[in-house]
Amino acid sequence: MVKTVEWLSDQPGRFFPGRLKLIDQTRLPTEVLFLELRTVESVWHAIKILQVRGAPAIGVAAAMGVIVGIQESRARTPDAIRTAVRAAADRLATSRPTAVNLFWALDRMKQAARADLPATDLAEHLAAEAVRIGMEDTAMCRAIGEHGATLLAGVHSVLTHCNAGSLATSWYGTALAPLYVALEKGQVIQVYADETRPLLQGARLTAWELSQAGIPVTVICDNMAAVVMRQKKIGAVLVGADRIAANGDTANKIGTYGVALLAAAHRIPFYVLAPSSTFDFTLASGDSIPIEERDPREVTHGLGKQTVPEGVKVFNPAFDVTPAALITAIVCEKGIARPDYRTSLKTLLSPR
Amino acid sequence: MVKTVEWLSDQPGRFFPGRLKLIDQTRLPTEVLFLELRTVESVWHAIKILQVRGAPAIGVAAAMGVIVGIQESRARTPDAIRTAVRAAADRLATSRPTAVNLFWALDRMKQAARADLPATDLAEHLAAEAVRIGMEDTAMCRAIGEHGATLLAGVHSVLTHCNAGSLATSWYGTALAPLYVALEKGQVIQVYADETRPLLQGARLTAWELSQAGIPVTVICDNMAAVVMRQKKIGAVLVGADRIAANGDTANKIGTYGVALLAAAHRIPFYVLAPSSTFDFTLASGDSIPIEERDPREVTHGLGKQTVPEGVKVFNPAFDVTPAALITAIVCEKGIARPDYRTSLKTLLSPR
Repeated sequence: MVKTVEWLSDQPGRFFPGRLKLIDQTRLPTEVLFLELRTVESVWHAIKILQVRGAPAIGVAAAMGVIVGIQESRARTPDAIRTAVRAAADRLATSRPTAVNLFWALDRMKQAARADLPATDLAEHLAAEAVRIGMEDTAMCRAIGEHGATLLAGVHSVLTHCNAGSLATSWYGTALAPLYVALEKGQVIQVYADETRPLLQGARLTAWELSQAGIPVTVICDNMAAVVMRQKKIGAVLVGADRIAANGDTANKIGTYGVALLAAAHRIPFYVLAPSSTFDFTLASGDSIPIEERDPREVTHGLGKQTVPEGVKVFNPAFDVTPAALITAIVCEKGIARPDYRTSLKTLLSPR
Repeated sequence: MVKTVEWLSDQPGRFFPGRLKLIDQTRLPTEVLFLELRTVESVWHAIKILQVRGAPAIGVAAAMGVIVGIQESRARTPDAIRTAVRAAADRLATSRPTAVNLFWALDRMKQAARADLPATDLAEHLAAEAVRIGMEDTAMCRAIGEHGATLLAGVHSVLTHCNAGSLATSWYGTALAPLYVALEKGQVIQVYADETRPLLQGARLTAWELSQAGIPVTVICDNMAAVVMRQKKIGAVLVGADRIAANGDTANKIGTYGVALLAAAHRIPFYVLAPSSTFDFTLASGDSIPIEERDPREVTHGLGKQTVPEGVKVFNPAFDVTPAALITAIVCEKGIARPDYRTSLKTLLSPR
């Protein structure tokens, strides 16, 4: 499995100095190109143009981008380092306005910068914190995978939508994590991947990362999911989440709601897999989640040529909300919640 | 509304000689190009590469292609004309192997060639027959539209999949015909058109022909149909059909089955509109309709650039079967059938 976001140190035994290594996701699947970034501006640009995408992966990259900022500033005093951290964090915070993990990771780096340490130790302390954020993300994804794999006993084929995989996190992914865990235990599960129009994250990214890992994957157009469920003995549907309301209603990539309805019609379990940071208990239900509409050109020109007549209207919602009633279980790093989610999600998160 | 297939005569008051005029559907929606064809080979090529597509339109084009063949042969005797008809029909029959209307139209031209007439009259008789086939198709579509429009009283928005419109027939279309009839009567019905991957007939063709006719159309990706049904007050789903079994099970463009399931989940009426020639009473149910799989490159390279990693498997069924239980009504030129289709379809076709 390829590492999506990685910190490479320049000298053995220390994290600082170093550089941020990313796989350029805009080039996939036709080109596998790794970037090694040593300027805040290049990290900002990488997040902005989706060379790195997926909320967890963005958070990790931004934290590491702060370390890049310290090096770039050539700060020699603790105060100068703190100034460099603030400057880098302020800049990186403008790269994507909606990714919650981005702000969370930058705040955590600013907190860590308060440590009362000499300059060299402070820089090393901060670099270690950035690496730790990445490791925690990996551990969280791994835990989601362990819990999720228990739902896949005897399952030979699953269907997934979009990319909630390793490429969206530091490693393992969320929706795809159970497949990697199962593979380690010798269970090969075949995956049908919706191509996921308009941006084709399923065709480009999910298909690429699964085939790299040796998991058999078949790409289908989104409108083939129903016939695949009818014909191909799909044992489960696995999807990620952007936000989960207190009642279990789940916002995720456009098309997820339709897949959930099709799964229900075919009596196929429909699982949502996401870190607990995705839960938003301030929302009673999914009704209050606004549906963001994106640039029509993603639909009309997204694929290398114009496919819709000039002047014709396009509706391009970025995500949809799947009602809790269609979700068989919600899996996070702390375990598995089943309906009624109003109580089960809170129980899962409460300290034992 | 643009004419898809048209016979243009070279001299007033006579059908023969003339030429076949087609809109080149491979250029739509970015270019509106009409072809005037005067050789059998160019007609064969037009059918082969989908410059003209849709079973009814192909049938009409092939019939007119036979007339082109008579002219091209410069036949001066009835027997020479009959030889030219056979040669043109044999060649055109190899253009698309599965379009039933193609063979039906060519047979009808061969039958008409048996008429005992002098050469000039025979050529004119045959040209009239080809034009008649086109007019009958238009009348049939018009009748489907009249019947279908009665189902749309009070409906403001519909959803359709693929292109079963004017561009697939000589005029009016099948699934879209009720919209044109309603428009003539002053009822403007808004259309959501699934783009219909992999070949994008909805985005390219349905959007183009509806906007040409002044019917408001909004293109969506196939995976947005569910959220549109939930949010946009869709009053009906209208689709065409490739083949309808005796029990009402309907084979149509891939994705239709999923749309039918989504419509059922949202309690939206789901209507199939097709000429009675689409009914195949030799099939008890849709189970015996084989699912044709097409070239994976339609999915992986269909849009101007490669979207799936090299070596990854693709499942690309050309159509699917919608069970009769999901179909609210089947509309043909003879009227409207409702469940149980086993009896209602036969009643509809039986002589009054």
